[in-house]
Amino acid sequence: MASNAFGNLFRITTWGESHGPAIGVVIDGCPAGLKISIDEIAKDLFQRRPGNTPYTSPRKESDVPKILSGLFEGVTTGAPIMILIQNEDADSSKYAMLQNQLRPGHANFTYLAKYGIFDHRGGGRASARETAARVAAGAVAKALLREHGIALYAYIKQIGHIRAKSINLNEIKQNPLFCPDHDASLEMMQLLDEIKKEGDSIGGIVELTSSSLPIGLGDPIYEKLEANLAKAMLSLPASKGIEFGDGFFSATLRGSEHNDLFDTDEQGNATLQSNHAGGTLGGISSGQPLLLRVAFKPPSSIAKPQPTLNIHKEKSILTLPEGSRHDPCVAIRAVPVVEAMAALVLADAVLMNSSTKITSEKSSLFN
Amino acid sequence: MASNAFGNLFRITTWGESHGPAIGVVIDGCPAGLKISIDEIAKDLFQRRPGNTPYTSPRKESDVPKILSGLFEGVTTGAPIMILIQNEDADSSKYAMLQNQLRPGHANFTYLAKYGIFDHRGGGRASARETAARVAAGAVAKALLREHGIALYAYIKQIGHIRAKSINLNEIKQNPLFCPDHDASLEMMQLLDEIKKEGDSIGGIVELTSSSLPIGLGDPIYEKLEANLAKAMLSLPASKGIEFGDGFFSATLRGSEHNDLFDTDEQGNATLQSNHAGGTLGGISSGQPLLLRVAFKPPSSIAKPQPTLNIHKEKSILTLPEGSRHDPCVAIRAVPVVEAMAALVLADAVLMNSSTKITSEKSSLFN
Amino acid sequence: MASNAFGNLFRITTWGESHGPAIGVVIDGCPAGLKISIDEIAKDLFQRRPGNTPYTSPRKESDVPKILSGLFEGVTTGAPIMILIQNEDADSSKYAMLQNQLRPGHANFTYLAKYGIFDHRGGGRASARETAARVAAGAVAKALLREHGIALYAYIKQIGHIRAKSINLNEIKQNPLFCPDHDASLEMMQLLDEIKKEGDSIGGIVELTSSSLPIGLGDPIYEKLEANLAKAMLSLPASKGIEFGDGFFSATLRGSEHNDLFDTDEQGNATLQSNHAGGTLGGISSGQPLLLRVAFKPPSSIAKPQPTLNIHKEKSILTLPEGSRHDPCVAIRAVPVVEAMAALVLADAVLMNSSTKITSEKSSLFN
Amino acid sequence: MASNAFGNLFRITTWGESHGPAIGVVIDGCPAGLKISIDEIAKDLFQRRPGNTPYTSPRKESDVPKILSGLFEGVTTGAPIMILIQNEDADSSKYAMLQNQLRPGHANFTYLAKYGIFDHRGGGRASARETAARVAAGAVAKALLREHGIALYAYIKQIGHIRAKSINLNEIKQNPLFCPDHDASLEMMQLLDEIKKEGDSIGGIVELTSSSLPIGLGDPIYEKLEANLAKAMLSLPASKGIEFGDGFFSATLRGSEHNDLFDTDEQGNATLQSNHAGGTLGGISSGQPLLLRVAFKPPSSIAKPQPTLNIHKEKSILTLPEGSRHDPCVAIRAVPVVEAMAALVLADAVLMNSSTKITSEKSSLFN
Repeated sequence: MASNAFGNLFRITTWGESHGPAIGVVIDGCPAGLKISIDEIAKDLFQRRPGNTPYTSPRKESDVPKILSGLFEGVTTGAPIMILIQNEDADSSKYAMLQNQLRPGHANFTYLAKYGIFDHRGGGRASARETAARVAAGAVAKALLREHGIALYAYIKQIGHIRAKSINLNEIKQNPLFCPDHDASLEMMQLLDEIKKEGDSIGGIVELTSSSLPIGLGDPIYEKLEANLAKAMLSLPASKGIEFGDGFFSATLRGSEHNDLFDTDEQGNATLQSNHAGGTLGGISSGQPLLLRVAFKPPSSIAKPQPTLNIHKEKSILTLPEGSRHDPCVAIRAVPVVEAMAALVLADAVLMNSSTKITSEKSSLFN
Repeated sequence: MASNAFGNLFRITTWGESHGPAIGVVIDGCPAGLKISIDEIAKDLFQRRPGNTPYTSPRKESDVPKILSGLFEGVTTGAPIMILIQNEDADSSKYAMLQNQLRPGHANFTYLAKYGIFDHRGGGRASARETAARVAAGAVAKALLREHGIALYAYIKQIGHIRAKSINLNEIKQNPLFCPDHDASLEMMQLLDEIKKEGDSIGGIVELTSSSLPIGLGDPIYEKLEANLAKAMLSLPASKGIEFGDGFFSATLRGSEHNDLFDTDEQGNATLQSNHAGGTLGGISSGQPLLLRVAFKPPSSIAKPQPTLNIHKEKSILTLPEGSRHDPCVAIRAVPVVEAMAALVLADAVLMNSSTKITSEKSSLFN
Repeated sequence: MASNAFGNLFRITTWGESHGPAIGVVIDGCPAGLKISIDEIAKDLFQRRPGNTPYTSPRKESDVPKILSGLFEGVTTGAPIMILIQNEDADSSKYAMLQNQLRPGHANFTYLAKYGIFDHRGGGRASARETAARVAAGAVAKALLREHGIALYAYIKQIGHIRAKSINLNEIKQNPLFCPDHDASLEMMQLLDEIKKEGDSIGGIVELTSSSLPIGLGDPIYEKLEANLAKAMLSLPASKGIEFGDGFFSATLRGSEHNDLFDTDEQGNATLQSNHAGGTLGGISSGQPLLLRVAFKPPSSIAKPQPTLNIHKEKSILTLPEGSRHDPCVAIRAVPVVEAMAALVLADAVLMNSSTKITSEKSSLFN
Repeated sequence: MASNAFGNLFRITTWGESHGPAIGVVIDGCPAGLKISIDEIAKDLFQRRPGNTPYTSPRKESDVPKILSGLFEGVTTGAPIMILIQNEDADSSKYAMLQNQLRPGHANFTYLAKYGIFDHRGGGRASARETAARVAAGAVAKALLREHGIALYAYIKQIGHIRAKSINLNEIKQNPLFCPDHDASLEMMQLLDEIKKEGDSIGGIVELTSSSLPIGLGDPIYEKLEANLAKAMLSLPASKGIEFGDGFFSATLRGSEHNDLFDTDEQGNATLQSNHAGGTLGGISSGQPLLLRVAFKPPSSIAKPQPTLNIHKEKSILTLPEGSRHDPCVAIRAVPVVEAMAALVLADAVLMNSSTKITSEKSSLFN
């Protein structure tokens, strides 16, 4: 399978099942000399962990990361960094009754068909719990990006039909839904309350932007920045789409409307006046902020009973056990994960970029 | 850079510039024993080539593929397959005047910044001409997929605001816009005529579906089918987004609306009753047809004069030379390329799947 | 760096420093359905661990492996398998005095130059301790190979000038030096006693053979079986060479002496009468047993004082601290590691081979 | 299969059969801004081509390389470089009679068993002709290495039992056997004359050394410089072993004999006084020249009749057709190929090294 790794030079491999003893990640390729604080990793994990608000799964995980290798006196040595997170609140008993049921919208059907075996406890490897390992690795990637002046901002753009209109970056971290528009978030919470009452779930959209990227990240043809970001985001559980800049809306635009025109900035460097493209040209960062949106489907696990089949292909009714712990809207907890995945792609692009040309002469485009 | 290759086991590497002597592709990993007809490759290239209709670039390329290796008496031997396509109508003279201009929405800015050098003739490597090599490789991938009973169908779903309503697969190949809705295509052509008259361009959306996929293609976590398809499609010039099944619309749905329920089919096998997910569960094909859409921005090269900078950062006006050959809507010619990229991803998934488990026992889910 | 992973489809990533809390390995790509026993892994680790005999380092490690993921009820699920081994007897105090010394023949010089930082405690990542993780992964690979009827046998071929003459496979596991020639091993132990008395160390050669391999493992050109085995073995600490079959001696042979001639075996299948080549033809297994030898240099850490420089480039004398724990001959403990690395290469080749051709028809060469 | 590519960041993919219309290579990842002269590539190809001396195969190939992409006005652009070499003297008629014979020591047996199909004409993909593509790519790699002050020198060290005693680098290029010891080469030629008269072939050893390498090339654990060089060399047709520095002889040495001691050089930098290790420590270049040797078996194609089987498993006698073109000692023509492969490994290591650490501060070890 060999499908649990992501990245070229900044490469992560994640491991661990939802209800196993622990999950974790090995980061291979992080440059030496980078200061890493365990607190930063813990802080990012805290954002993602369930049970923070009434709007996420009540599973309780303290999610304390342990760094088992790769650091010497708080600094990376170039050796692989292994981060382990214990599973604490893995209550498999509730899953016993699901063992023989096909769960609509859930991977147990395809895993069973593909592998002939499935660790049904808590969704096993297919559980969103795996994304905690991505967030831990993303925190390291973000530390590397900070050295290059890059900051990332993910937030809830939409839940159901309710869309954030204003983007206040300061609001994000204090908003229980990571929503940059306080008023919209109030409406969203009202919707989520209804959804929960109905025993149902709802979809959502996460948006990500950044500080202005250095020009030149990403590689032509198959390693375009968008290509790798798209792979990163569509590898997330429940994600169903991605778009950059004007995205699907650009299908309705004319070239004269969509083209970002060139100008010089205050330092006299060539720059772009607008950002319809979302931060890239030809797959390479153009000096504008990154701008992308990821669509998440409604979580498949809902309290409402659903008709289904058991693994002997007999009709049955799926009713999740009392007290099952599921998210009404997975997009909320996906916010720090989207940020982490973007960080991983950019960290890789930064490292890839260091071997691009033999001279370090500046182009005439820049001072 | 090493960014000109795509795929794991069925791996392609493309080479060649728009205005060099030739372009081509090496396919590494195609299994032995597959019959390949040069005519099939030629037929697919014909679909993509410019100049077929008034709605695509008037560049004239006969695009005759030559297979230089990997076949013995018409059958693959397991050796790399090299397909070369001569460039015939590469008229660089028209590009001379563009040499020192930044072209809005075009990669020459980022290539220059990244590499310090740019082959400006016809867009060099950043030209859509590179996609001819993908189509040639895709034809080989499609031959492999046929052995596994998989057929793919790409078509124009939308141009500007005009959307195909009916999907008539028989219409596609005979429709000048690859549109499966004849009536919608008439409106689209009218729009394209206007766009051309204005010296402008327009965006569009390509949709792809397939025959029912075998269950089990795609690998968990980072090699999900959607992840690799997303990478494939976002590696295409001018693509700005991708979505699967209900896609971005699923953000507005409830779980009870979006979940595809299980049932048994006529053969008594477990199957799904609907396809909101677009053909996968947990990143693995579920037995439903694939369903995805790719958004393409309007082409950046337009006849209308545009304010810009030259490479010395002086303000100037970009006017494309008389007789410049550009597409009013790149989505049209992207149709066979989207199909080729999907074929490459699926061929890889088929090969990856052969090493998944040690037994070949059937699951109880299937007869 | 991203250099801590090995293999294509059966892929391992190791992590951990000699004197960190633990070391371990993630195996990504092991097929589902394979029974894995923790005892088997523990048994292989026991072979490699120091302190088993007077002829290896006295460091005491119980080396109990813990499997943290990838197994469900003792069977692989296709998910990554994480095996963790605690470091117990990591006594860093002895290394404090070495911190500022360049150690002749040791990697601390090149690591410091390359990374600007070095975890000097016990050799950090450059320590042979990393090979315990390889052995754990190799035990899983051997379980997979067993399903394909492949068994491997590594043993000491030579220490100093003393060479094993007879190859008695039954002797290996009970011999304190893993030597298949009991008499030669007595001489070797005498030599090792002398070496230790002198405060010196000595080189050696490990040989590996196997049951008859299935025909067809390994891929042409750059993924030849020998190429990957050579990479595997030269990635081992202290290894300085590898040869296959007649190896360097074949430089002195004529084609008529070296060519292995064809014949039919008792089942009437085409086979080879001899094995000068060491088990492959054109990089692909020929149905003969694998035969290779790996040369190991004498360990660089010796009790004898050695002139050197400190990290301020001042001349000094390196004297290892009293009670330093080093191997007089690293080849001995390398025996199970060589076997593990061969298992990893072959497991990968077995998986790679499953996607080679589209038909499963037998060649006329075999019944 | 996907086995026709080599390298990570400086990555080549070769294609083409011995008796197809052409062979070639795509280089993906060569940095932009490098001047490449077609004459240099042609010069290296001339060294490798057959028919230069009475001691190599009489096949006549002009081996004129054509660069079809990746250069703009003689300078690399970062785009893939495609080099094509026409096959001119591919006389397949002579191979018709071999079509149904198993050739002792030859890959047609394993290819047939693995793929069920074999392009028997001239050995197809298994032919040493593939190495011409490696030499072309190696010439580009050498141009990149020159920018980093690295020069490589390969030469014949041994043919049969005759060994070069003196190493005169100036002798190599003018010696018909690429032998650095003029007197030894006279003896070798006498031996080759005898071998040819007998209708037999003979093995040999190629040695490679270099200018002092920059410190820090190569990556720990699985991407050690020796590991990748070993893979590179054992991927060569007919190679049976590799050793570094003292190599297999180091198995007989003591640590006090083998350890290279540190000293300061004339510039006051830390350096090594000897080079038993062959240029690396812990897999990373130590500032010494590289030193390695590759053993080549005697070519399997000999004029002498040999008993064998046909593909129907009937006993037969293999007699090569009159005028068959084979090398009496493949090691001779392997000399430029060994140099090319070393160049490819080092070019990759140079690029990999650029993303190793975040600071560029010098270690205290160097001024």
